[in-house]
Amino acid sequence: MDLFASELNRQHDQPMYRQIYEKIAERIICGKLCFGEKLPSKKRLAQQLGVSVITVQTAYDMLSDEGYIQSRPRSGFYVCRVDPLLTSGRSPQKHRHQQEPAFRFDLRMNAVDASIFPFKQWAGFMRESILDGQGFLVVGDTRGDLELRESICRYLNTVRGVQCNERQVLVGAGIESLLVMLCQIFDAARFAVEEPCYPKVRTVLRNCSKDFSSIALDEEGICIADLERSGADIVYVTPSHQFPTGITMPIGRRMDLLNWAYRGSKQGEKRYIIEDDFGGEFDLDGRPVRCLQGLDQNASVIYIGSFSRVLAPSVRVSYMVLPFDLLEITERKFRSYSSTVSRFEQQALSRFLDSDCFLRHVRKTRHALRHKRDVLLELLERIPVQSRPVCRRESVSSHAVLRLQKKNAEAFCRQAAERGVRVIRMSDFYANPQNADGSEILLGIAAPSEQDIRLAFDQLFPLF
Amino acid sequence: MDLFASELNRQHDQPMYRQIYEKIAERIICGKLCFGEKLPSKKRLAQQLGVSVITVQTAYDMLSDEGYIQSRPRSGFYVCRVDPLLTSGRSPQKHRHQQEPAFRFDLRMNAVDASIFPFKQWAGFMRESILDGQGFLVVGDTRGDLELRESICRYLNTVRGVQCNERQVLVGAGIESLLVMLCQIFDAARFAVEEPCYPKVRTVLRNCSKDFSSIALDEEGICIADLERSGADIVYVTPSHQFPTGITMPIGRRMDLLNWAYRGSKQGEKRYIIEDDFGGEFDLDGRPVRCLQGLDQNASVIYIGSFSRVLAPSVRVSYMVLPFDLLEITERKFRSYSSTVSRFEQQALSRFLDSDCFLRHVRKTRHALRHKRDVLLELLERIPVQSRPVCRRESVSSHAVLRLQKKNAEAFCRQAAERGVRVIRMSDFYANPQNADGSEILLGIAAPSEQDIRLAFDQLFPLF
Repeated sequence: MDLFASELNRQHDQPMYRQIYEKIAERIICGKLCFGEKLPSKKRLAQQLGVSVITVQTAYDMLSDEGYIQSRPRSGFYVCRVDPLLTSGRSPQKHRHQQEPAFRFDLRMNAVDASIFPFKQWAGFMRESILDGQGFLVVGDTRGDLELRESICRYLNTVRGVQCNERQVLVGAGIESLLVMLCQIFDAARFAVEEPCYPKVRTVLRNCSKDFSSIALDEEGICIADLERSGADIVYVTPSHQFPTGITMPIGRRMDLLNWAYRGSKQGEKRYIIEDDFGGEFDLDGRPVRCLQGLDQNASVIYIGSFSRVLAPSVRVSYMVLPFDLLEITERKFRSYSSTVSRFEQQALSRFLDSDCFLRHVRKTRHALRHKRDVLLELLERIPVQSRPVCRRESVSSHAVLRLQKKNAEAFCRQAAERGVRVIRMSDFYANPQNADGSEILLGIAAPSEQDIRLAFDQLFPLF
Repeated sequence: MDLFASELNRQHDQPMYRQIYEKIAERIICGKLCFGEKLPSKKRLAQQLGVSVITVQTAYDMLSDEGYIQSRPRSGFYVCRVDPLLTSGRSPQKHRHQQEPAFRFDLRMNAVDASIFPFKQWAGFMRESILDGQGFLVVGDTRGDLELRESICRYLNTVRGVQCNERQVLVGAGIESLLVMLCQIFDAARFAVEEPCYPKVRTVLRNCSKDFSSIALDEEGICIADLERSGADIVYVTPSHQFPTGITMPIGRRMDLLNWAYRGSKQGEKRYIIEDDFGGEFDLDGRPVRCLQGLDQNASVIYIGSFSRVLAPSVRVSYMVLPFDLLEITERKFRSYSSTVSRFEQQALSRFLDSDCFLRHVRKTRHALRHKRDVLLELLERIPVQSRPVCRRESVSSHAVLRLQKKNAEAFCRQAAERGVRVIRMSDFYANPQNADGSEILLGIAAPSEQDIRLAFDQLFPLF
């Protein structure tokens, strides 16, 4: 063996035995030390390297534990058979990271107002739940901690009129992970989604290799006749405030949709409705519509919600309420999984939901949103009627939909970006952008301050 | 309309307008109020119910917003067409919840020692990251926050010899969610897993409708010839401490496995190895073996790990390190997803990993495990050789494998449960339990205290 004394470094962080181990392992891997070759005795190598015998002993032990060398009694240490690594010699591809442009005014939608977020209270509940956390170190219930599921039930029962108990609730880290579970539960089902809808929903379905149809909306929401024709067994809808159009589905259409599910079920192929109650908590005029799940009498609604808007999109806690007849298959498929939400966070959220802080925070958020909506509508009023975008007051929740006078949403957004304002085109939410009429843009009002909305507006409509 | 004054309750939490709204909506849904029927005027109903006109006005507004009723100018309010709900009349199935039996001594494996967990430090880091959290309310990078990915890289570079930079790291809430992503990336691939292995891995593959083979182990780990024969393109292995057998794959087998991937790749169907570095951080004799990812020169290893054992299984943060050639497809498929880990927790973990607390905690955990292993081995020594279970010292990490003298692991576990001790059979980890030899049991030593291990041992082997 060649001497590598010069390669060792006594000042190095790594202990000497580790360095010796590394040098010899390297030589075996690259083939410099061959199968069957005898290593110097511990004493001799120690002398050569100027280290203690114990140091060499430790390095040899490590090498032999890992199968690099083998000790033969009364003979010494020999190199084991370690085939050299085959390699293509190609260097790894470099990956270019896409950087997002920065905006002075970000009217994005998936965000909340940092000036309202209850940082102190949330930190307090989190701290409490960790310090009380002896019992929360082990993996909890797959569905989520009982305490959290109970808190969610109480919240949904009282605020949203959902009929459920804690056995039906399943907590997960984001709508995506819950949807993936549903895709796996409804293995052979054909899905339908709204057109337009949240693009992530289509991405999840596509990633799960699911067949789906995009169903057009009319002014009351999803078209039942089109849904019927699509042959879907399960439909994903956002009846509270259709995302992104803001349409609130009226009671008649709700009943039609529930009856669509019932009709299918009678024929033996049970149909389901996934009700994403997006925006249900933020009807700005305090008139939350009764959710489908609360109206349903045939256990055909899977109710989905999250704390993205009530807390923040970066707090990854979502939930679904399953009809009783899906509990067995859900348990069978996912029993061995661990919940995707850390238990300390589950416990903190449960305490938060049960406290006064929570409803206070929801009220505060709703109040701020209502105010910002009114500011936006008032700003729009300043634009002369013939060029004023149309914005339906009742469709505004955490974002507003503006229908421009001309069909030039794309150019409008480009110009806005040049002026430092991020706005979003409605057409981005269509499976087929050709279905969009090209005149609508979306302004997120949840995150920016009132002042930023005013300043952004001046940039968007500089002439008025 | 019938009078429902008697049904209203002034002492109720719900405001009167809400109660009136509910009563009328109920009557419309159940068909008591029919399409086209005229409602009493606001003034008249207010008189009948003994409430103010504004109260009735609010209730009527809500009903009309939601499409229950329609106002006709200068005429009044009329019931809209709301088809009655079709219903099967079946009552929902009752779901029986399975209760886990309680054990006095729980030698389960998926747990950590609560007496060591750094509750105060973790609460501190969490608190800090929330209070500094202005920037962490919006959805972050799909792959996880840059700070956390950098901390993970530093940790993996120094402690585990993983070659990576932060662009290759993807953070997720648990191995399951990362595996689901891999199943979606390797859409058409055939998988292989070790026999035995962590059953959850098989469940995820099955839930993702993936075809997979279970490959037998010999004393060095997965059999390469069997793997080759299986026709798999991607294999899931645990080379550091094979789970659950505790086998450490020697360097020769590691090279063979890497070469298996290389050989396949040459033929155009690139092969991959998923290296779950389970137990890599807890080699109790301080001789962590070099991971496959660190040895690999052909970008064929996907390295997976979690903080389940370093922190706690209830802290749901896992990560994978992807080879460069998979970054593009990963970004394409999952770009629109939000990370499954809350950003406050990501930030707290990043701070924790970068602090001295972390390595101190790892050392403390390793020290405690080593001590408990020695206690267990010492206890075993007391049993006479002819009936003493065999336990290979070097295979112990956070659990020990005991090979009983008789092939009666099932009976042994049943008796143990009767005496209040939970132990686990090796056969539970096999895809085909017939492949297990029936003499092995697993004792988790991570969670119980030394004293509990001693007491449990007295119950398990009462005669010695």
